[in-house]
Amino acid sequence: MSGGLSHFDPSGQAHMVDVSDKAVTDRIATAQAWVKMSATTLTHVTEGTAKKGDVLGIARIAGIQGAKKTADLIPLCHPLPITKVALDLTPDANLPGVRITATVKTTGQTGVEMEALTAASTAALTIYDMLKAVQKDMEIGGLRVTLKDGGKSGRFEG
Amino acid sequence: MSGGLSHFDPSGQAHMVDVSDKAVTDRIATAQAWVKMSATTLTHVTEGTAKKGDVLGIARIAGIQGAKKTADLIPLCHPLPITKVALDLTPDANLPGVRITATVKTTGQTGVEMEALTAASTAALTIYDMLKAVQKDMEIGGLRVTLKDGGKSGRFEG
Amino acid sequence: MSGGLSHFDPSGQAHMVDVSDKAVTDRIATAQAWVKMSATTLTHVTEGTAKKGDVLGIARIAGIQGAKKTADLIPLCHPLPITKVALDLTPDANLPGVRITATVKTTGQTGVEMEALTAASTAALTIYDMLKAVQKDMEIGGLRVTLKDGGKSGRFEG
Amino acid sequence: MSGGLSHFDPSGQAHMVDVSDKAVTDRIATAQAWVKMSATTLTHVTEGTAKKGDVLGIARIAGIQGAKKTADLIPLCHPLPITKVALDLTPDANLPGVRITATVKTTGQTGVEMEALTAASTAALTIYDMLKAVQKDMEIGGLRVTLKDGGKSGRFEG
Amino acid sequence: MSGGLSHFDPSGQAHMVDVSDKAVTDRIATAQAWVKMSATTLTHVTEGTAKKGDVLGIARIAGIQGAKKTADLIPLCHPLPITKVALDLTPDANLPGVRITATVKTTGQTGVEMEALTAASTAALTIYDMLKAVQKDMEIGGLRVTLKDGGKSGRFEG
Amino acid sequence: MSGGLSHFDPSGQAHMVDVSDKAVTDRIATAQAWVKMSATTLTHVTEGTAKKGDVLGIARIAGIQGAKKTADLIPLCHPLPITKVALDLTPDANLPGVRITATVKTTGQTGVEMEALTAASTAALTIYDMLKAVQKDMEIGGLRVTLKDGGKSGRFEG
Repeated sequence: MSGGLSHFDPSGQAHMVDVSDKAVTDRIATAQAWVKMSATTLTHVTEGTAKKGDVLGIARIAGIQGAKKTADLIPLCHPLPITKVALDLTPDANLPGVRITATVKTTGQTGVEMEALTAASTAALTIYDMLKAVQKDMEIGGLRVTLKDGGKSGRFEG
Repeated sequence: MSGGLSHFDPSGQAHMVDVSDKAVTDRIATAQAWVKMSATTLTHVTEGTAKKGDVLGIARIAGIQGAKKTADLIPLCHPLPITKVALDLTPDANLPGVRITATVKTTGQTGVEMEALTAASTAALTIYDMLKAVQKDMEIGGLRVTLKDGGKSGRFEG
Repeated sequence: MSGGLSHFDPSGQAHMVDVSDKAVTDRIATAQAWVKMSATTLTHVTEGTAKKGDVLGIARIAGIQGAKKTADLIPLCHPLPITKVALDLTPDANLPGVRITATVKTTGQTGVEMEALTAASTAALTIYDMLKAVQKDMEIGGLRVTLKDGGKSGRFEG
Repeated sequence: MSGGLSHFDPSGQAHMVDVSDKAVTDRIATAQAWVKMSATTLTHVTEGTAKKGDVLGIARIAGIQGAKKTADLIPLCHPLPITKVALDLTPDANLPGVRITATVKTTGQTGVEMEALTAASTAALTIYDMLKAVQKDMEIGGLRVTLKDGGKSGRFEG
Repeated sequence: MSGGLSHFDPSGQAHMVDVSDKAVTDRIATAQAWVKMSATTLTHVTEGTAKKGDVLGIARIAGIQGAKKTADLIPLCHPLPITKVALDLTPDANLPGVRITATVKTTGQTGVEMEALTAASTAALTIYDMLKAVQKDMEIGGLRVTLKDGGKSGRFEG
Repeated sequence: MSGGLSHFDPSGQAHMVDVSDKAVTDRIATAQAWVKMSATTLTHVTEGTAKKGDVLGIARIAGIQGAKKTADLIPLCHPLPITKVALDLTPDANLPGVRITATVKTTGQTGVEMEALTAASTAALTIYDMLKAVQKDMEIGGLRVTLKDGGKSGRFEG
């Protein structure tokens, strides 16, 4: 089914695609996202990080745990033995808001870009949750894969 | 702590905020998001919906189940007896891509905007997962709350 | 949509149906199932119950925990504050095998027949798992709702 | 403990049996089940599949996700890196009802028949849930393993 | 069954006890625990809290999330709509180690002492996990209920 | 970061540490705990084990399932393919109470001491839950790792 959607069989029915013949290789993926907010809201983040009310610390933990829940959240994802999850959360006064990068690694038979996206997305949602008492019209965007490597389909950089 | 972050106590430590004295009321929230893709990728969605490979049908189920997992994903969210979840997923040739609207209701002591955001986000991630075999540089964005009503803080429209 | 499938909206899209206007009432449901096995296999159950290798005790716990996972397993089920789960597991030499009855109660806005079915089903699967080392061709059947009461649609006995 | 129940130690206490010395091999299992309903109820399924109200599409997704939850549902099951899940759901006018076949693969140290049974069972329960608004006395049965292969105990066909 | 174990029925079989006739009241429970470690290990905690490597912040989040998983972990616990979770984590140079107090509230039909114990226990385990790279022979103890109030059985202080 | 906390990167941010370059080896860990109670309460356990009201049998199952939830409970734990879980639960009239030993094995890239601790802790909490109707001031303690072997850091006995 060249160029087609691998999550569907030839008759169009969804399945968790068979990866049992794929090689076990080291795989890595990174994903990015941002949470846009007012400059005033951002001060709650930057002050909290330094002293108390650690918004980014909590979002980082949520993102790591989110990566582990990927196969539970995304119906056709394979459960994977994740070997690394890291999140970089950086306040950006020009956005203004927080920029998120999630990196996930595995040694397995399929890629981890969904795990990286889920980690970034969960961290973004947690930042929203922490700050929604002071601003309701924040926006989450820019959620995309920026690196995927280690599988048969080769290296992708976005 | 007027104007402050309710998820932190006066000393700056995170807690699940006490809502036991808040009234049990009917609450509703809606959230939106989009998945941007190439026009070619979008044809996989539109053809699938009509005939086979039902990308949107699967994303809708994932979004509904995602709403139910909100308190598990977002550390300081209260578990809530959700009374309704609906997702509207519409192909948009001008984006091009898919526009997502999630609506969640509860009869409880706290709002459901995080549940609506999580539903929309999970549906968007599932659409990405379904289509990533044909396009890796799709982007998810526009994730925000568009309606929140039923609590003490009144009606919010975004 | 009289006589129709409430889990779909008028355009045929799945949703978790809105129950926020339904009354909070005491609800109960029971479901049954059986696991058919050889008479020899059944002796592993009956001897274990009396002395060691407590197959039915473990299946009972699995069934109770299964009831609590219903909304996680069945996509359009509402999360419910279950107030009681009980499982009756009885060896039946005439089957031969084990007969299962699950009873679930809630005080809520929707019925618990799916919780009762899931409890019975999970107990049956656990019995299979415990005994599969000695017999692989056991069969699970007779899974059905035998009582549902407490909601607007009245009493059902099956 | 030849011919005995491997899930219990010599003193009769349950344990998750040690598989660390078993070979990592490719394993496959299939399981079947059916949902019996009236001919009228079945028309809701067959019309839905073609156009809207896609009962079988939703049950298929639930079954795939159910397979991934097996170790969480069945107390003594090992967590396994599932490499494939597929469900075949076929309306059968002679039953009348729906026939379910679930196929699961892994590359691991223990078999996947419980995963196949759980996938089939979860799909069956979801079909019941979708259709219970029009018929409450449907019955689920015929749940059994039809193929298990790839482990030390050889090929089983049921 | 005066004075008996309510989690078992008269025939000795486990069940999730029926609470549907109990009043919905405001309930609170607190539980305590400690993690004993060397004075050197404790400096990793105290320095981390002040500057970086926030052991206690992560343990606090884990404890809050642990409280929400109580009904999933403890077989016969009822799922409850938790309305508050807070954890107090205090370094104690005299122990030496960390002292943990967890407070949980609900408005429901049964108490939350298991939720408080699970929150304290999960926080303690997370502290162990964070610090085990520098000390393996830490010990967790003193896990007990210190307050339970709001139900029919009256106030308990431990 | 010799002697430091591996769960934090050089800038002090938490991450799930990269184990992808570690060898896949057979690993084992054991952990212990106890639940202290009155002699009268202990009779509920000892009588139940023999005939009915099987407190220890239920705690054993909860402990096994708890081990499988470790990566979900402890934020920075890696998901692991557990290959064995066993719990030994022994009434001790001198305590008086119940002594718990949990043994967990894996073939993987990181150790299983957190899984052993979580199994022991979950079993202890379940024993408390079963018996709290007759005694509220029980105490859980002595939770520690007694053996860890199979990784690069060598054998640890506690």
